[in-house]
Amino acid sequence: MTRIAFIGLGIMGLPMATNLLAAGYDVRAYNRSPRPGYEGELASSVAEAVQDAEVIITMLPDSPDVSSVVLGSDGVLASAAPGALLIDMSSISPATARSIAAAGADVGVGVLDAPVSGGEQGAIEATLSIMVGGAADDVAAARPILETVGKTVVHVGPAGSGQTVKAANQLIVAGTIELVAEALTFLDAHSVDLEPAVEVLAGGLAGNRILDRKAAGMIAHEFAPGFRIDLHHKDLGIVTDSARDAGVVIPLGALVAQLMASARARGLGDLDHSALLLGVEALSGRGQNGTAATE
Amino acid sequence: MTRIAFIGLGIMGLPMATNLLAAGYDVRAYNRSPRPGYEGELASSVAEAVQDAEVIITMLPDSPDVSSVVLGSDGVLASAAPGALLIDMSSISPATARSIAAAGADVGVGVLDAPVSGGEQGAIEATLSIMVGGAADDVAAARPILETVGKTVVHVGPAGSGQTVKAANQLIVAGTIELVAEALTFLDAHSVDLEPAVEVLAGGLAGNRILDRKAAGMIAHEFAPGFRIDLHHKDLGIVTDSARDAGVVIPLGALVAQLMASARARGLGDLDHSALLLGVEALSGRGQNGTAATE
Amino acid sequence: MTRIAFIGLGIMGLPMATNLLAAGYDVRAYNRSPRPGYEGELASSVAEAVQDAEVIITMLPDSPDVSSVVLGSDGVLASAAPGALLIDMSSISPATARSIAAAGADVGVGVLDAPVSGGEQGAIEATLSIMVGGAADDVAAARPILETVGKTVVHVGPAGSGQTVKAANQLIVAGTIELVAEALTFLDAHSVDLEPAVEVLAGGLAGNRILDRKAAGMIAHEFAPGFRIDLHHKDLGIVTDSARDAGVVIPLGALVAQLMASARARGLGDLDHSALLLGVEALSGRGQNGTAATE
Amino acid sequence: MTRIAFIGLGIMGLPMATNLLAAGYDVRAYNRSPRPGYEGELASSVAEAVQDAEVIITMLPDSPDVSSVVLGSDGVLASAAPGALLIDMSSISPATARSIAAAGADVGVGVLDAPVSGGEQGAIEATLSIMVGGAADDVAAARPILETVGKTVVHVGPAGSGQTVKAANQLIVAGTIELVAEALTFLDAHSVDLEPAVEVLAGGLAGNRILDRKAAGMIAHEFAPGFRIDLHHKDLGIVTDSARDAGVVIPLGALVAQLMASARARGLGDLDHSALLLGVEALSGRGQNGTAATE
Repeated sequence: MTRIAFIGLGIMGLPMATNLLAAGYDVRAYNRSPRPGYEGELASSVAEAVQDAEVIITMLPDSPDVSSVVLGSDGVLASAAPGALLIDMSSISPATARSIAAAGADVGVGVLDAPVSGGEQGAIEATLSIMVGGAADDVAAARPILETVGKTVVHVGPAGSGQTVKAANQLIVAGTIELVAEALTFLDAHSVDLEPAVEVLAGGLAGNRILDRKAAGMIAHEFAPGFRIDLHHKDLGIVTDSARDAGVVIPLGALVAQLMASARARGLGDLDHSALLLGVEALSGRGQNGTAATE
Repeated sequence: MTRIAFIGLGIMGLPMATNLLAAGYDVRAYNRSPRPGYEGELASSVAEAVQDAEVIITMLPDSPDVSSVVLGSDGVLASAAPGALLIDMSSISPATARSIAAAGADVGVGVLDAPVSGGEQGAIEATLSIMVGGAADDVAAARPILETVGKTVVHVGPAGSGQTVKAANQLIVAGTIELVAEALTFLDAHSVDLEPAVEVLAGGLAGNRILDRKAAGMIAHEFAPGFRIDLHHKDLGIVTDSARDAGVVIPLGALVAQLMASARARGLGDLDHSALLLGVEALSGRGQNGTAATE
Repeated sequence: MTRIAFIGLGIMGLPMATNLLAAGYDVRAYNRSPRPGYEGELASSVAEAVQDAEVIITMLPDSPDVSSVVLGSDGVLASAAPGALLIDMSSISPATARSIAAAGADVGVGVLDAPVSGGEQGAIEATLSIMVGGAADDVAAARPILETVGKTVVHVGPAGSGQTVKAANQLIVAGTIELVAEALTFLDAHSVDLEPAVEVLAGGLAGNRILDRKAAGMIAHEFAPGFRIDLHHKDLGIVTDSARDAGVVIPLGALVAQLMASARARGLGDLDHSALLLGVEALSGRGQNGTAATE
Repeated sequence: MTRIAFIGLGIMGLPMATNLLAAGYDVRAYNRSPRPGYEGELASSVAEAVQDAEVIITMLPDSPDVSSVVLGSDGVLASAAPGALLIDMSSISPATARSIAAAGADVGVGVLDAPVSGGEQGAIEATLSIMVGGAADDVAAARPILETVGKTVVHVGPAGSGQTVKAANQLIVAGTIELVAEALTFLDAHSVDLEPAVEVLAGGLAGNRILDRKAAGMIAHEFAPGFRIDLHHKDLGIVTDSARDAGVVIPLGALVAQLMASARARGLGDLDHSALLLGVEALSGRGQNGTAATE
């Protein structure tokens, strides 16, 4: 069975590596700090993990982490065997993804960018959506592995494309949360019953996954994450920078990035991103007492 | 079977009245101008249509039309029998809906505001979503009729609430179209394959009805309506006015209202509202030749 | 000397009427409620004030007030002698101004819209800027009177143009206050000394009247009006409605209108419009303790 | 007389160095490419220019240029004598300015960030406004030199503060141009005479330097730079990044940055920044033929 090096056993990485182990893959993992709960073989360095791996998976927090782990002097590309395949599943900037793909090409290592959506639960249940950028034959080679950790695996274009689609995903998600927040505040201010209103909104052209999964929590003012404001703020930085680099004008994206930044600046960074609702309420002079949730 | 007066045999009204006829209701209809294609009884005036109706349904273009037909000296309330029930299914401002409910109460006529979503196709197939504002017993009385023309019938609160929910619906729909337009332009500028990208976006937290129903047409630059820019512009005027009246701040709503107004000012009023995409492309200096759709 | 009827002895109207009296005009004034402090002749009704006046000046809060006082059955146009000239110096919507001009034409009364800027102090000192819409010969006839209460009197176009320019004025003023508020918060967050920063900003291409007159108060967090948030909110409603009617897209105007609405919704309606600063600070999680002003 | 090394003889640098020469300073200059028109001594490298200079002035296009020239292995700090003073007059990011100040401190070289406003004309006439960040004694030492090339020299805070104020300046300027553009389009669409309207707007609380210096060109649709869209776009990137880093929310700033990016994406990068007007006209469906300017 394919020998896999898995680097980064965080909230997402640990269950993903565990799912690969359970499927019979030969997984050697590495995490910077000790990581209780992982039952497979642990390497003591990136180099040791990568050494004779056929496939290397990285699942790390941000662009600088990936750059350092992959491009560093003791990093993935310095230690990987020619012909190995690197699958970076972190969410990072498309520009970084493209430069890593180029560096891989220089040393004969194929590189895919394959960020995921679906959260911790999707990682545990192996139902992640995976958006993959890179060469078609590398995607074909990686597909069995990716389908072991996810449910939907879609090849969306050349190197960097996976990250670009992830950025577009985060743009739509943030904007949709804000639209639902504005709608709920508008309805509540007009004394409309929110639960039946959400039901009918979800049934028509306004229907979306945020109404399905987040609106009830928003009405109840329950904002345990889920996906944190801080992380979505990071992602919207990637969105606005990438749009600027490409000369694409995104007025709604830029404005919701300001509103997400506001939530963070107001100390809500550890709440679920659906807490954008609190910003609309604050702008409208409506506190917890002004809303149906607390009546 | 209940005697129904049906006023307004437009694109929506005609199939709705026809569905009521087919269900066995005694429907007498009125339209300002002759309306070929309607097979039931036609009255020659509002007064004649309304005279001994138990239920009166109005389906008209805009707030002034409803005010005039309902409140005018030869209008619905002047001719309706006490105890009749008026169901206004037009999309108008919540404030107008409330004033009509109050005028009805003065003459012993119950009033519901019951705007719909689902479009011409939903009207033909009797699958409309109907959001109803008014008194609970009036809603109960109207439910069999409403379920004859629609699939989802939800009571969302007192008089005006139906229109308020419709306004919230139009806010979310416009904003979502714009978000999808920004995302598609962003992806296209980065040379991502749009069809697989839409597939993976639609499968995750970014999933929404616009991606499901409109994205393919947007990618192909096919903008036959559907729901016209001009009408959505009218509706966003209701949204921004109602938000202002209620002291609710809707930054994304206000901005997308500007972008919809721009589409109209640029002569696109007769296109489908998904033509907001053309605005994002124009802002980004990308014409038809800059997009995957025409390559 | 010209006989003038002056209707509306508010904060602005009282010093303006007083300046006309002092210049030797024969002024008969009317105010709905008793108005101590006015030393000229007082009429007991609009009709009595207007009766044999050559020039009628109205200085009232909002569009409905002007409509009612001018068009009502006991109003200005019902009582004015043919050939009289009505100068409405209130700030109202251009559409209302145009309909009043049309109504005046029907009864042989010339009408000018002549809103002012400069505030209470400008009214007292007779240094108001006056933007005048209407026929050139009416403007010429009114000029001596207007130059008695103001310093800059400019004819900007046909009926309604004065109000349109006033609306443009309020758009620029609100936007400039917000820009200065964003700049001050930005500078303060970076620990820049605000007073010298304002000095150098005011000296270059960024220079504006808000930096000159309001920045010091903003730094000190002193928001006594001046011009109240509530009134500017009213004016921005005129701006956004008039832009919408004319098919003009004003993204910054629409956004600052939301921010002004937010200030009002948060209970700041009685503060000076420079209190938009508090909104930027709230969005940025910075209270009074986070700013240089209170350290 | 103080020995000055002057690095960067561009459109701004050349007249500034020339003014220092004319004032009697001992100026040795360096430019990467040959620069006809400079009449002082020319060095053949940064190192040679800097060697025994008491004051080193850099006037370069962007952050990377300054980083490379100052921090490079043959750069300013490698060659400067301990005790020398570096005055960077480029417009760069505050973060880069702070890191250069720190690097200077490590080798005993004082560093000031001293960006300017006033353009080529201000450089030629020595009337620049100069906003200075750094230590007070370094500012005192530099003042005679700065007052030789500028008129207003203001110390605004510690290292980086000069660049922060320059960023705030660019935020206000861009926003004000857009507000004036929206106002002019609004007025033109309402058939108001633009020249007298600008006159009265400039005289009141809406008055600003853009109305004074740019409005006439905007009305005439003359957009020869001046200050180019491309450069202002670069500067707004510094503004939005610095605001994001500091947790400051700037909704108008973020939106005007999108509109400036749009102007650039639409191919207007070489026009004067007042060409933001063309964007408002395009959004409003008004071309050159729709405006008073070309009638």
